[in-house]
Amino acid sequence: MKKLALGLKSLIMFLLIPITLFSQKDVKELSLMPMPENIHLNAGKFVLDKNFTIVLNTNENKLFDAAYRSLKIITDRSGLYVLSQFPLIQPDVKGKGIVINVAEDVKLELGIDESYQLVVSSDKIRIDAPNTFGAMHGLSTLVQLLDSDEGGYYFPCVTIKDKPRFVWRGLMIDISRHFEPIEVMKRNIDAMAAVKMNVLHWHLTDDHGFRIETKSLPKLHELGSDGLYYTHEQIKDVVNYAYERGIRVVPEFDLPGHATAWLVGYPELASAPGPYSIERLWGIFNPTFDPTNEDVYKFLEIFFKEMTELFPDQYWHLGGDENNGKQWNANPKIQEFMKANNLKDNHALQNYFNVRLDKILKKLNKTMVGWYTDEMPDLEKDYIVQAWKGRTTLYETAKKGYRSLISHGFYIDLVQSTEYHYNNDPIPPDSILTDEVKERILGGEATMWAEFVGPETIDSRIWPRTAAIAERLWSPGAVNDLDNMFDRLDQVSLQLETYGLTHIKNYNMMLRRIANNYNIEELKNFVNAVKPLYTYSRDRPHIFKSYYPLTRIVDASLPDPRCARLFNNSVDLFLAKETIDIDNYKKVKSSLEIWKENHERLLPLIKSRPILNEVAPLSEDLSKVAVIGLESLELIKENKKADPLWVTASNEILKAAAIPKGEIEIAILSSIQKLFARANK
Amino acid sequence: MKKLALGLKSLIMFLLIPITLFSQKDVKELSLMPMPENIHLNAGKFVLDKNFTIVLNTNENKLFDAAYRSLKIITDRSGLYVLSQFPLIQPDVKGKGIVINVAEDVKLELGIDESYQLVVSSDKIRIDAPNTFGAMHGLSTLVQLLDSDEGGYYFPCVTIKDKPRFVWRGLMIDISRHFEPIEVMKRNIDAMAAVKMNVLHWHLTDDHGFRIETKSLPKLHELGSDGLYYTHEQIKDVVNYAYERGIRVVPEFDLPGHATAWLVGYPELASAPGPYSIERLWGIFNPTFDPTNEDVYKFLEIFFKEMTELFPDQYWHLGGDENNGKQWNANPKIQEFMKANNLKDNHALQNYFNVRLDKILKKLNKTMVGWYTDEMPDLEKDYIVQAWKGRTTLYETAKKGYRSLISHGFYIDLVQSTEYHYNNDPIPPDSILTDEVKERILGGEATMWAEFVGPETIDSRIWPRTAAIAERLWSPGAVNDLDNMFDRLDQVSLQLETYGLTHIKNYNMMLRRIANNYNIEELKNFVNAVKPLYTYSRDRPHIFKSYYPLTRIVDASLPDPRCARLFNNSVDLFLAKETIDIDNYKKVKSSLEIWKENHERLLPLIKSRPILNEVAPLSEDLSKVAVIGLESLELIKENKKADPLWVTASNEILKAAAIPKGEIEIAILSSIQKLFARANK
Repeated sequence: MKKLALGLKSLIMFLLIPITLFSQKDVKELSLMPMPENIHLNAGKFVLDKNFTIVLNTNENKLFDAAYRSLKIITDRSGLYVLSQFPLIQPDVKGKGIVINVAEDVKLELGIDESYQLVVSSDKIRIDAPNTFGAMHGLSTLVQLLDSDEGGYYFPCVTIKDKPRFVWRGLMIDISRHFEPIEVMKRNIDAMAAVKMNVLHWHLTDDHGFRIETKSLPKLHELGSDGLYYTHEQIKDVVNYAYERGIRVVPEFDLPGHATAWLVGYPELASAPGPYSIERLWGIFNPTFDPTNEDVYKFLEIFFKEMTELFPDQYWHLGGDENNGKQWNANPKIQEFMKANNLKDNHALQNYFNVRLDKILKKLNKTMVGWYTDEMPDLEKDYIVQAWKGRTTLYETAKKGYRSLISHGFYIDLVQSTEYHYNNDPIPPDSILTDEVKERILGGEATMWAEFVGPETIDSRIWPRTAAIAERLWSPGAVNDLDNMFDRLDQVSLQLETYGLTHIKNYNMMLRRIANNYNIEELKNFVNAVKPLYTYSRDRPHIFKSYYPLTRIVDASLPDPRCARLFNNSVDLFLAKETIDIDNYKKVKSSLEIWKENHERLLPLIKSRPILNEVAPLSEDLSKVAVIGLESLELIKENKKADPLWVTASNEILKAAAIPKGEIEIAILSSIQKLFARANK
Repeated sequence: MKKLALGLKSLIMFLLIPITLFSQKDVKELSLMPMPENIHLNAGKFVLDKNFTIVLNTNENKLFDAAYRSLKIITDRSGLYVLSQFPLIQPDVKGKGIVINVAEDVKLELGIDESYQLVVSSDKIRIDAPNTFGAMHGLSTLVQLLDSDEGGYYFPCVTIKDKPRFVWRGLMIDISRHFEPIEVMKRNIDAMAAVKMNVLHWHLTDDHGFRIETKSLPKLHELGSDGLYYTHEQIKDVVNYAYERGIRVVPEFDLPGHATAWLVGYPELASAPGPYSIERLWGIFNPTFDPTNEDVYKFLEIFFKEMTELFPDQYWHLGGDENNGKQWNANPKIQEFMKANNLKDNHALQNYFNVRLDKILKKLNKTMVGWYTDEMPDLEKDYIVQAWKGRTTLYETAKKGYRSLISHGFYIDLVQSTEYHYNNDPIPPDSILTDEVKERILGGEATMWAEFVGPETIDSRIWPRTAAIAERLWSPGAVNDLDNMFDRLDQVSLQLETYGLTHIKNYNMMLRRIANNYNIEELKNFVNAVKPLYTYSRDRPHIFKSYYPLTRIVDASLPDPRCARLFNNSVDLFLAKETIDIDNYKKVKSSLEIWKENHERLLPLIKSRPILNEVAPLSEDLSKVAVIGLESLELIKENKKADPLWVTASNEILKAAAIPKGEIEIAILSSIQKLFARANK
């Protein structure tokens, strides 16, 4: 007995030691993302068999459903025919299998306790949590722990004590610029829950579409949406679906700018005479609500009131970004109003507008959230500010006493690297902010703006990169080993397919459509080595329109592509060693040999599929730089000196290959440049 | 002018000559399915550019939307940025591009004129149709004609005059045994429309789930569905979605048997005392409505009345199959009733029940459809009979004066070959039926029963095989060249991905989940060569339950797998020639060499993924028979005599390999057997 007591005591001590102090070798091999705050890997495993069950101490519906879903994922992956389809309910939870013990059911709201403890021992698994939502996080962790070997499917014995670093871990999805059907929202909610995110920020209106049925003001959706909008029933369905997974839904109705789609049906509320039509181009547009028109406030109060029936969350996003002020400047009545009310500029007028809306929202018991505008609105201190233009604004607003969110650095629509997002710590270790100010930084949101995504491609723009952002917002800041993050990300990305996510499977599908063929080997060799251009560098003169196809190579190619990353890693490892690393030498060589021959092999397809014309020169560049890579590799291996003529010629080729074509660029070019630089040293 | 007149005259003559009389070489290369009744391929092509538009002679919404959808598919496949997002409307349709000329808008109902004419010339495309639904078929054909070469994307110049052979070309989907979300229904409706099917028969209730919200009798869906049911809004959405694509929705409410899920909420309507619970096993079960209880008819009248608001079609399927009569036999009250009413057996009682229901339906202006039961019910002649147990019943009922549908031979849930279904002509050329009887054979339906499919796998069980059934029901019976059908099917199958169908892309996804790895090369080599076992031969002692995982190899493997078919074709071609056909020799050899080595290469994965244990012996079998195949190939090529000892040993191996394992079997075994037989001749 004494021994046991000691064991328990040291266990408890373990739990209090942060993860980074351990030797992490084994823990890091677990496919966990986000990495728990405290984790200790023990010897042994819990092996699954057909008697596997989940036992709950409560008959609370949400927990029951969550347990059922976890059971389903576990049996789907293992193929096990378990005897009990549904979780069991026992107030004193003493069964075998998984036992879940929840203290109470609480309302999902900002700041609830999301902690949990998970203990896997060889004969029992126990999840303890203060409430259902914490227990769900425990189940998400457990599902990620599922592993297998010759002895069967199992969970490794582990002791986890976990809670989030930030209380607001969000994903914003813009469904105005391109509409997304309900099932796209649902599968992304599932993925969010799998990586413990807890806010879906739903950007429901913009210049390109008013996407929600409004019974009291039907011209909004009837004239402003091209028929692509959600009904009340669909909205309730999604909000409920999210709630059941521990995810709050914060709607955004962007005002007073980004408002074209509202004004198609109600042009009389604009700051300039209509008529208005749904916007088809990308950019910042003039149509803006008239803050001096009292009808606007009556109209918005009716609208908000109807919407409050659909969105139970306390928080309410009113946008407020990118109002260019042109309509206000040009309207004499507005200018007069500003003078009469001592509003010195458009910021002041927008502030006036916001204060009015804030009052309406307060009447409806809602708290306002908004994008940081160039000058902070003078709102009450319950207002939450979302910083998107830079990190400074995040700290400024927090210092001023506002609660703040960071989206700067989490703009996933820009197709930047996972590493960039992962390193975007809202409060870096060297932060000089006071604890009080730090407290006001609630967390952050990945933002999926939708100029260049549709239902086929949105998943691959969100995932897997957003799982790394989820880890940044959940796990201790000290969890920051990049290589290990990528190992775990690859595993979690695979697991996300379970929820219907298409981020992996639509890649081949899109290449098959382009090729109009089952054989996409050569096309894939090429696209594996490229990535879409940084969004802000995309071909603006193209003048994109909202209905243009999203089926080109730039759409099929993946941000931060895994194949290119693995190749780049091999090059780095090869170059890092003093002696020749034959393993990585072979890996690098075999990839380069494929690419070297690929353009010739791909040419017949390019010739018969004009959609490939725009990227044909880049395919040729890829083969050319692969040759340089191979030649460099041999020079390095043989420790030979490079011919100056070869160096000059290669430099030209590398320069030309660095120019994007068809809005994509070569994702392995930096590695070729590194090999070339070493060969040429 | 004279020349033109002559040209027109010969063109008209062309249109009247059935397709089979042409030299079909070129026409057969078009990716059309179903093949049109009359088609003539002309010289030249219509090349697409950014000015491409569709011009309509009417502003009818359905046609506009259909034209928009076709435009979207065309631009998605070509990547073209066309200037006009939406079709144009001009009463005198004189624009360039596609011109659609529709005579009138009609209500979609059984037997409407679905014909169309499509003429593609180098500067114009014209579709003429008596109504919108015919024009939609024209658009489906046009989209399939899209092709490309170095000069761009184009439609070949062609003259088509087309109409269906049968008026009822259906797909039944059972969503009771396994539920399917709305988006699964929608993408399958899109695919149906693409191959010109026109009836979705929606099997909404069965022992395993009552899948439709019923406001007047809420215990039906609340207690009978595990929460998996469609709301009224969802049903209306799907019915409207189908209608807009020329597809009638015929709901099925299976009665009086297959009724467990109804009786969970209303046990008092059953023929034996309850309580009842949702059925979890597969089979035929006892719970049956009590035809002697007047409350049953009141109940069903209320139910039907509510449902008529959701399903506008004239036809209404009442099931009527597989009532085992056990509850009736055991109920003295029912036996007494039968005696009192001179009902000599259960068939007579079921007939009594049907006649009562028929009266209720007639009051609601609906016409009854039912599965053929062992003895035909004595119903009025407007009743439509669906023959599923055999072809004889189809002819019998038609001879008796009933209109009939065939599903026998179209049971796609049994995972039989495409060839088998394709050859299942409802009225073969040698039919001795009178024209009057033939007229009563309205068409047929592919039936997707759902014991072994869920949302991830249903598409691959329906497609592409159902496209071949669609051709059988639309095209002239003389369109029956198997090789050509498969060439076209492969193309159309690829095109179906455009609609979101997962029949191709979920294959790799499911293998990745099993492997828990991105690298599925060896697993795929294996699964490419196998197929799921004929459903009725599946492992009954397993006692499947409705919640068991559908994620095993048997679920991932494809019915009539394309890779195996291509291999089998190569073997047939190799064996068909007198001399050694070196091309096919090489093809066969290289595949066999991969399979020969594959088991060894796959073993490490099998060892770490116990879900593969059940198929490991078959993987070994595959490698062993590949060796026999290679040895046979060499004997044939070298014209050597086989060693009798080798023959004996090989025979044993082939016999063992023919035994299914894990409910799958080797799909290339017959080819190995053929090679072996030749080597051993």
